[in-house]
Amino acid sequence: MKFGGTSVAGTERIRRVANIVRAQAAAGNEVAVVVSAMAGETDRLVNFCREANPLYDPAEYDVVVASGEQVTSGLLALTLQSMGRKARSWLGWQVPVRTFASHANARVGAIEAEPMIEAMQGGEIAIIPGFQGVSDNGRITTMGRGGSDTSAVAVAAAIEADRCDIYTDVDGVYTTDPRIVARARKIKHIAFEEMLELASVGAKVLQTRSVSMAMKYNVRVQVLSSFVDENSPSADSLPGTMIVSETEMGKLLEEGKVERQSVTGIAHDKNEARVVLTRVPDKPGAVADIFTPLGEAGINVDMIIQNVGRDKGETDVTFTVPQAELARAQAMLEDRQEALGFNRLITDSKVAKISVVGMGMKSHAGVAATMFKALADRGINVQAISTSEIKVSVLIDEDETELAVRVLHTAYGLDAEDDAA
Amino acid sequence: MKFGGTSVAGTERIRRVANIVRAQAAAGNEVAVVVSAMAGETDRLVNFCREANPLYDPAEYDVVVASGEQVTSGLLALTLQSMGRKARSWLGWQVPVRTFASHANARVGAIEAEPMIEAMQGGEIAIIPGFQGVSDNGRITTMGRGGSDTSAVAVAAAIEADRCDIYTDVDGVYTTDPRIVARARKIKHIAFEEMLELASVGAKVLQTRSVSMAMKYNVRVQVLSSFVDENSPSADSLPGTMIVSETEMGKLLEEGKVERQSVTGIAHDKNEARVVLTRVPDKPGAVADIFTPLGEAGINVDMIIQNVGRDKGETDVTFTVPQAELARAQAMLEDRQEALGFNRLITDSKVAKISVVGMGMKSHAGVAATMFKALADRGINVQAISTSEIKVSVLIDEDETELAVRVLHTAYGLDAEDDAA
Repeated sequence: MKFGGTSVAGTERIRRVANIVRAQAAAGNEVAVVVSAMAGETDRLVNFCREANPLYDPAEYDVVVASGEQVTSGLLALTLQSMGRKARSWLGWQVPVRTFASHANARVGAIEAEPMIEAMQGGEIAIIPGFQGVSDNGRITTMGRGGSDTSAVAVAAAIEADRCDIYTDVDGVYTTDPRIVARARKIKHIAFEEMLELASVGAKVLQTRSVSMAMKYNVRVQVLSSFVDENSPSADSLPGTMIVSETEMGKLLEEGKVERQSVTGIAHDKNEARVVLTRVPDKPGAVADIFTPLGEAGINVDMIIQNVGRDKGETDVTFTVPQAELARAQAMLEDRQEALGFNRLITDSKVAKISVVGMGMKSHAGVAATMFKALADRGINVQAISTSEIKVSVLIDEDETELAVRVLHTAYGLDAEDDAA
Repeated sequence: MKFGGTSVAGTERIRRVANIVRAQAAAGNEVAVVVSAMAGETDRLVNFCREANPLYDPAEYDVVVASGEQVTSGLLALTLQSMGRKARSWLGWQVPVRTFASHANARVGAIEAEPMIEAMQGGEIAIIPGFQGVSDNGRITTMGRGGSDTSAVAVAAAIEADRCDIYTDVDGVYTTDPRIVARARKIKHIAFEEMLELASVGAKVLQTRSVSMAMKYNVRVQVLSSFVDENSPSADSLPGTMIVSETEMGKLLEEGKVERQSVTGIAHDKNEARVVLTRVPDKPGAVADIFTPLGEAGINVDMIIQNVGRDKGETDVTFTVPQAELARAQAMLEDRQEALGFNRLITDSKVAKISVVGMGMKSHAGVAATMFKALADRGINVQAISTSEIKVSVLIDEDETELAVRVLHTAYGLDAEDDAA
């Protein structure tokens, strides 16, 4: 079970969390709980680090910020004890949760959970601070913002949990953003691959890395709200979203427990920016010369379109980068203008990426065609397209985001039938 | 070097501390620094624990409260790095600072500082969170409030430091409380034994346990103010108080660097309460019957006087206990009134203990006589007396505390000669 910062913000809320945990333990489950820092605490600690040293050493940054989760772990253990349950905290270095790669952005490696598993088998609830681990040389590491979801999945994998319940401030994954489409439906079951595409294109329910890890170790992840009735006997009956393997999804389809659909969900992302380079020489290697330096600088280029040149031997190249990296990309390209030989560099931040995602695309033909037609019927101009096996994304004018999402939600038959939904 | 909570309350103050540390390192010293939590932080964390579980598990309490020192350690390391110094934090479990006895009140055991010493020899400043250690079974421990002084002395002993500088909000140990006696003098050198007596009778400069440890391991401790000029080149020239062994004190006396005096300092303590049991049967074992149960209950009985009985076969017994334990002591005695056979139990919290302390008493006769005469001359009534090899304490009316301290300060020739002092 994993609880985020809002769920553990203060001892009153930690008591609510403890009640939810207690109900799971009372139902006969052996329970490990991963907790975030109290909401606001990590920001406070990060600010301290910035004040102390703007170019902070990530190893010491980790020492400071990991303390937030340490506090909530101890407090949750204390609260469970006050309810008569056996509980103890297991800090990252105590489990230990081994990590590799850099400080402040560590990746989870081996989790040697034997002592913790033994304690759990003895009826003790294990509380693990999320987001933190220990490096090979015995120093505290953290996994980057949002890393607690990854911690939870990694711990679930290590203890071979039946399920990893991630309690959050939403009650599940929806077919699209319910603030845009009132008739968005909560998805009961979704495949890892689909969730990964939805997470990476802007459905901010779970951290992308945690979904990759769940897929890798085949950990069934349930997303559900921590603001449910804390006296509910079992999360099994809670109406969250279960994220499962393609295999399990196939079985559910066969058993008729899941409806076969071409598209599972629709995501939007307003954080992309479009870059156009005009009149790039149309010769071998020209495109590689543009994208190789951007890639080396860690700038994530997403959609790429090479327009047919109006003039012979020249072409326009369009692509997208995250808005946060636009300035850096622009500077790099302008520095190389002569070498690359383009005429003008045009940028546009007022764009949005709309993606339709679904395992069903593999067997349903015409998903992309449906998309283009539905958008065209409403006069929405598509500026770029990218596709994967289970996703079609288009770039449109940012002002048309909500309209496009609504149109597509209806076009793929995702609207809830019940008007009350 | 050890800095308390007020000195590290916020990144601005941590920068001041870093400057003081940097000056020591720049002077060619290998430096280890022990830090407390930011002022107020430990209280905040303790309150969280109490809210979570009023009967808290001290092992989890330790997990929560130890985080405060962890944060300041990381921040001080970051700040020193921002000044171009190599620095890293060494948490209690990383050094490791092994502790024994109970959680929340652990005692320091072995400190295996080899890796840290190596790092220091490589020019890296070591930052150690005070107050925390690690138990045999790998859990975080804390040493009770004020434990950071003890941490500092223990680390100093482990690394065989030339000196342990304890920066605090006063600039040294005075012959008496300067708020009472304007002509109180700062003591330049004091013996461990004297400091121990002064610390335990109310001169709240250092935690008693830290002084005992300094004496045990012969760690020279300097008390000095953290609000000195941060750009001062070296703490050696700072006018703090140096606490040293009796042997070193002897050498300083021989060399004429210290003046031979009968009394080094005068302390007062208003936290005692007096208990009188009247008409206790004057028979063997009667006094033991009174004090044995109090001792077993952990109530610290200090001064004891058995008055000559007015009636044959009866005696009045007077003693003191800390005010905080008065109610408990009173209840225990009243429960046993019949068995003990006393007539009335009279208590008085409006008393003060005045102590004169000095190694010089061993060789100077008449120190106690001087005290009684000086007090009698001003009409101050002595209610009880207790003595040790280097201390004479008297119990007087609380209202006469300041007068008594002033009278004695003058009587022992401790007044500063310079009116400006």
